[in-house]
Amino acid sequence: MFAPPVQDLIDELAKLPGIGRKTAQRLAFHLLKIDAAAAKKLANSIVVMKDTVRFCPKCFNFSADNLCEYCSDPRRDDTIVCVVEEAPDIVSVEKTGEFRGRYHVLGGAISPIDGIGPDDLHLQELLGRISTDGVREVIVATNPNVEGEATAMYLARLLVPVGVKVTRIASGLPVGGDLEYADEVTLGRALQGRRELGV
Amino acid sequence: MFAPPVQDLIDELAKLPGIGRKTAQRLAFHLLKIDAAAAKKLANSIVVMKDTVRFCPKCFNFSADNLCEYCSDPRRDDTIVCVVEEAPDIVSVEKTGEFRGRYHVLGGAISPIDGIGPDDLHLQELLGRISTDGVREVIVATNPNVEGEATAMYLARLLVPVGVKVTRIASGLPVGGDLEYADEVTLGRALQGRRELGV
Repeated sequence: MFAPPVQDLIDELAKLPGIGRKTAQRLAFHLLKIDAAAAKKLANSIVVMKDTVRFCPKCFNFSADNLCEYCSDPRRDDTIVCVVEEAPDIVSVEKTGEFRGRYHVLGGAISPIDGIGPDDLHLQELLGRISTDGVREVIVATNPNVEGEATAMYLARLLVPVGVKVTRIASGLPVGGDLEYADEVTLGRALQGRRELGV
Repeated sequence: MFAPPVQDLIDELAKLPGIGRKTAQRLAFHLLKIDAAAAKKLANSIVVMKDTVRFCPKCFNFSADNLCEYCSDPRRDDTIVCVVEEAPDIVSVEKTGEFRGRYHVLGGAISPIDGIGPDDLHLQELLGRISTDGVREVIVATNPNVEGEATAMYLARLLVPVGVKVTRIASGLPVGGDLEYADEVTLGRALQGRRELGV
């Protein structure tokens, strides 16, 4: 239907997650219409990224150097590690400005349905860091869904016997949210996690 | 926040239409995770497409050769031209299998709000083709919205005095649709465009 170079591009774009054939067509036609320099800038940034960005060997964050920016920062606290499922989650935690420890990326969450077990996650590397770096607390910041909770429970069973304090980020109503529209599970969690207010 | 090569890629992806910052991040992380060959295949298909695909000088469809596949096909009928807004619309018309004439891409539709007037469309080139190719009928297949209808009216006023038959694709209920859910404008058009049934 389309000229072969256009069809090839549509096929490649449609392989991206969340990009269907219609969206791939729309993107391909956009790239056809814009000037060549702008389109090739996108192509080049893919190539540069693939050529330069690797996984940090310590925490499995993405990194352009050997160690990532968080592992190589001497001002961060070695004794507290925030465990996340995927590298982009680190950026979300960093944006809060509430955490100055280290990170560890598991590379997913335990999910028997998807065939992902503990051996598929970077757990041995986490155990290794705990003994060598003197980690005292592990904050489990996996997603608050079934897989994330199962992973948090698994981490607690794995790490508490080693003498590490394992904490879980709070579930509750989002700030600016509305009780009327909260689902009952979230509201239940918010009640369980209630805190005493000082005066 | 992200390593510079990752941030550059996110910035480039976010320039694409309909791709926000969150989606751009998701796509960038997908490209980070897949193997380098697969990611570079996408980059390469952008470059190849920009290097090889041009506009057909006759109908303004995209073309890898000088004339596009429809203009260079000797079996198609020169005397009937289907006018569309954008090149991808040709593929939609072709899929019907109902049309064996030529195409002409306007490059948009008349839209005073967006500052697009008749001079911004490939109308002079259409007039030129009408006299040189002996075109007898022009089917206006612009979109059935305000801009597409305005463009259809403009084409009729431009071409009927030259002695060309100008027709408009029908508006009405989509096949498989439901009267209950049809909007009143579409249903009104379906009534206006009613056809007598033979026995």
